[in-house]
Amino acid sequence: MAKKEKSAISPTRAEDYPEWYQQVIKAADMAEVSPVRGCMVIKPWGYALWENMVRQLDIMFQETGVRNAYFPLFIPLHFLQKEADHVEGFATECAVVTHHRLKKEGGVLAPAGQLQEPLVVRPTSETIIGDAFARWITSYRDLPLLINQWANVVRWEMRTRIFLRTSEFLWQEGHTAHATADEAMARTRQMLDVYAAFVEAYLAIPVIKGVKTESERFPGAEETFCIEAMMQDRKALQAGTSHFLGQNFAKAAGIKYQSDQETEEYVWTTSWGVSTRMIGGLIMTHSDDDGLVLPPKIASAQVVLLPIFRKREDEKTVMDYTRTLARKLRAIYYHGQPLKVEIDTRTSGGARGWNWIKKGIPLRAEIGPRDIARDALFVGRRDLPHQEKRPIPRETFLANVTTVLDEMQQTYFDRAKAFRKAHIHKIDDRRAFDAFFTPADKDTPEIHGGFARSHWCGDADCEARIKETLKVTIRAIPLEGNKEEGSCIYCDKPGRQRVVFAKAY
Amino acid sequence: MAKKEKSAISPTRAEDYPEWYQQVIKAADMAEVSPVRGCMVIKPWGYALWENMVRQLDIMFQETGVRNAYFPLFIPLHFLQKEADHVEGFATECAVVTHHRLKKEGGVLAPAGQLQEPLVVRPTSETIIGDAFARWITSYRDLPLLINQWANVVRWEMRTRIFLRTSEFLWQEGHTAHATADEAMARTRQMLDVYAAFVEAYLAIPVIKGVKTESERFPGAEETFCIEAMMQDRKALQAGTSHFLGQNFAKAAGIKYQSDQETEEYVWTTSWGVSTRMIGGLIMTHSDDDGLVLPPKIASAQVVLLPIFRKREDEKTVMDYTRTLARKLRAIYYHGQPLKVEIDTRTSGGARGWNWIKKGIPLRAEIGPRDIARDALFVGRRDLPHQEKRPIPRETFLANVTTVLDEMQQTYFDRAKAFRKAHIHKIDDRRAFDAFFTPADKDTPEIHGGFARSHWCGDADCEARIKETLKVTIRAIPLEGNKEEGSCIYCDKPGRQRVVFAKAY
Repeated sequence: MAKKEKSAISPTRAEDYPEWYQQVIKAADMAEVSPVRGCMVIKPWGYALWENMVRQLDIMFQETGVRNAYFPLFIPLHFLQKEADHVEGFATECAVVTHHRLKKEGGVLAPAGQLQEPLVVRPTSETIIGDAFARWITSYRDLPLLINQWANVVRWEMRTRIFLRTSEFLWQEGHTAHATADEAMARTRQMLDVYAAFVEAYLAIPVIKGVKTESERFPGAEETFCIEAMMQDRKALQAGTSHFLGQNFAKAAGIKYQSDQETEEYVWTTSWGVSTRMIGGLIMTHSDDDGLVLPPKIASAQVVLLPIFRKREDEKTVMDYTRTLARKLRAIYYHGQPLKVEIDTRTSGGARGWNWIKKGIPLRAEIGPRDIARDALFVGRRDLPHQEKRPIPRETFLANVTTVLDEMQQTYFDRAKAFRKAHIHKIDDRRAFDAFFTPADKDTPEIHGGFARSHWCGDADCEARIKETLKVTIRAIPLEGNKEEGSCIYCDKPGRQRVVFAKAY
Repeated sequence: MAKKEKSAISPTRAEDYPEWYQQVIKAADMAEVSPVRGCMVIKPWGYALWENMVRQLDIMFQETGVRNAYFPLFIPLHFLQKEADHVEGFATECAVVTHHRLKKEGGVLAPAGQLQEPLVVRPTSETIIGDAFARWITSYRDLPLLINQWANVVRWEMRTRIFLRTSEFLWQEGHTAHATADEAMARTRQMLDVYAAFVEAYLAIPVIKGVKTESERFPGAEETFCIEAMMQDRKALQAGTSHFLGQNFAKAAGIKYQSDQETEEYVWTTSWGVSTRMIGGLIMTHSDDDGLVLPPKIASAQVVLLPIFRKREDEKTVMDYTRTLARKLRAIYYHGQPLKVEIDTRTSGGARGWNWIKKGIPLRAEIGPRDIARDALFVGRRDLPHQEKRPIPRETFLANVTTVLDEMQQTYFDRAKAFRKAHIHKIDDRRAFDAFFTPADKDTPEIHGGFARSHWCGDADCEARIKETLKVTIRAIPLEGNKEEGSCIYCDKPGRQRVVFAKAY
């Protein structure tokens, strides 16, 4: 089975990266475009990834004292108007509910019952949660207030791509209120650290932690922090953001508290979020020309058992052995969760093996009558060439399975880190910078240099010109290291720190 | 502390049941009405209940082979039109999105960018999921297809009440497709059994499993099965439904498969759901005049530790002891999950104790310097009078905590069952029936007899008349037992089985 004559995914990454991405999703049966403009259907193999992300992030949030709650899907129009920058940022892309009934007109349904005030389907919930915080907070004793919501949100995107940019997506949005600016800033940074730790340890994606420039900030924020990852086409993906909102939303919503000095003060707030977009980042970081590659700690399932029997009389023996093995595997805990094991009885032969390679499952174990006779499995690993399957005694497999999975997890992270390292360059020369971001080959316009670490003077004009000419933006002003004097890559004026320039999703 | 001079909740159940319900929710800090018409905010103490319900139900679904997926929030208008009964049932109460932008007109925001086709915010997802099933299913090998979605839905309710009936609510909706009617019916019944098992074992609410009459059926279903519970005002609450949809939605959406005989056939579908409404049922089944009562297996937390220190120098000793105890408790697994333990350091004295009684936490443990000296806790149980607190050696407490919690769980279930038994009556006489449902006292119009087990001829007219005159409906035609000849309570014509009549939420 699985003799590799050509790659499973067509086109390959080198041939057409954007199309390869779509084909990986299709081949792995993760999600599909829905008949509703810009909205996706997330199928079980893709949704399980999201569930695993939710489970782990939720544990990490709770450990920092955050509690979950749920707020309305709809936001009254006048709420959005309260914070000027915020409404500018979101007003161009909202789903607006204007009616609350349907009536039949000549046999055709039409909206009826016009609302007095239109409702916006939440694009994010600062305004509606701020309204609740204003009721909940009266005294310094109520602070800090640390709330998270797992929810769907809607932003009317014009150009959509599954997981990366969809009109509806799933996410979490944390919202906290604090007595002091320092405490709010510390929380903003703490949640960024949680995101970075999660994405690196679970998704095996190395990230750069940084601050956004003013032009890339969340509308209404005083400071936006982000984690940025490099995809295999060398473009950047923003995998999570954490915003220090100052007192902007507190003033807009009237969130005040009585201090221990009995003065009345506005709170300081933060918000932070990650979304189903992370699934897109996961796909684009690890997958290859054979399809999806899933880091074991977040995988929809870790092991698939593939029973093989050509003769009817072998069926019961093979299936009994397979089910017993599955039961034993499911009793093993891997990073706090029972191993997830699939049994594929539907077909056999090469097509079935390829199916699971394309689905990115870490381990495939074939079980035939001969394997059972010697109490062994014929095991394939997704991180090794598919032909390299090895017979492994069952007890050895059971004893070592979590170690092997951890090895694979580390391999994927190391690979991604090496790839990133190979495609981040310090660039101090304007022509080299232009060349770095200019595709070498017109047939593959998406292949360019990668991330440039260059100086920037801090002027929004230079940033805008670079964006205009090269479609390159400042992804992050990195938080760690990198302080050094230099000249702006665009205007030669002095800059005090290298920033990360890249094309981005 | 907690000396009981009067009840914590005002009014009491006897004084004003509907208002008591609202006050219990408020006192326990579970949820509140939002500024968005008919929508609620679910606060952490209430949301934790939902999370526990989701976790356990999800395990039970997965065990039957169901997998989770996610479908769009929006449904194109013409989808709803495909199934005639369905649209009739939902058309009067939908949120309709008609625009996808906002613009400023004289400084005020207004909808802009009218959609070519309006979108309905899903009231339920048979139509949009049916559309996906039509793409996913081609052969008998694709069947059965067993999908569940955890999601928010919107129904534009005119009269709302937190948890029981809100415009937006959280739920799960299972959707399955099968090759035969028998298999689809078996799945419909299987999921009803899952619901009944969950609600009885976890929510400690006894339920009656039954079939709905035609007038109470889900729009588009051929048969609707339900579980019905009795609240403390003796009204019925429908806690979950499971629908056999026949081939109605399959034909509307064109869900066909090629059989193993190579003929083309329509599939048979089912759908089944439970929602945040269960939280309302939980409150109304167990809570008392002191506030919320939470069955331990579903409680937001099982234990609260209440450190007590009057002198500053005691603080460290008491807090260290408390934190160590919390850690030990959290290492104990209770029905597959670590015990959830709160520590309340904010205030002390009677108000704090009452706060946790009103929140319904099963166990309260006070820890003061004297308790620590004898290595004991001063423990109060929510199922016993609040004054009956007892010193319990710490090791005994740790060793017995799960047993005590299980005892409480059983107590709550037994109480609810005894209450129901006391208020279900066989009634064969029309005047007795009328009297049973007529409130004895005009000041407490909600107090009446309870559930009547009476005969019904099967005629929708009799059903309608009873509803009209008494506001009493047939909640269920029970699945178990109860076959017996008799005369319709309304018209005297023969009936073959007693049905359950009740007022309902």
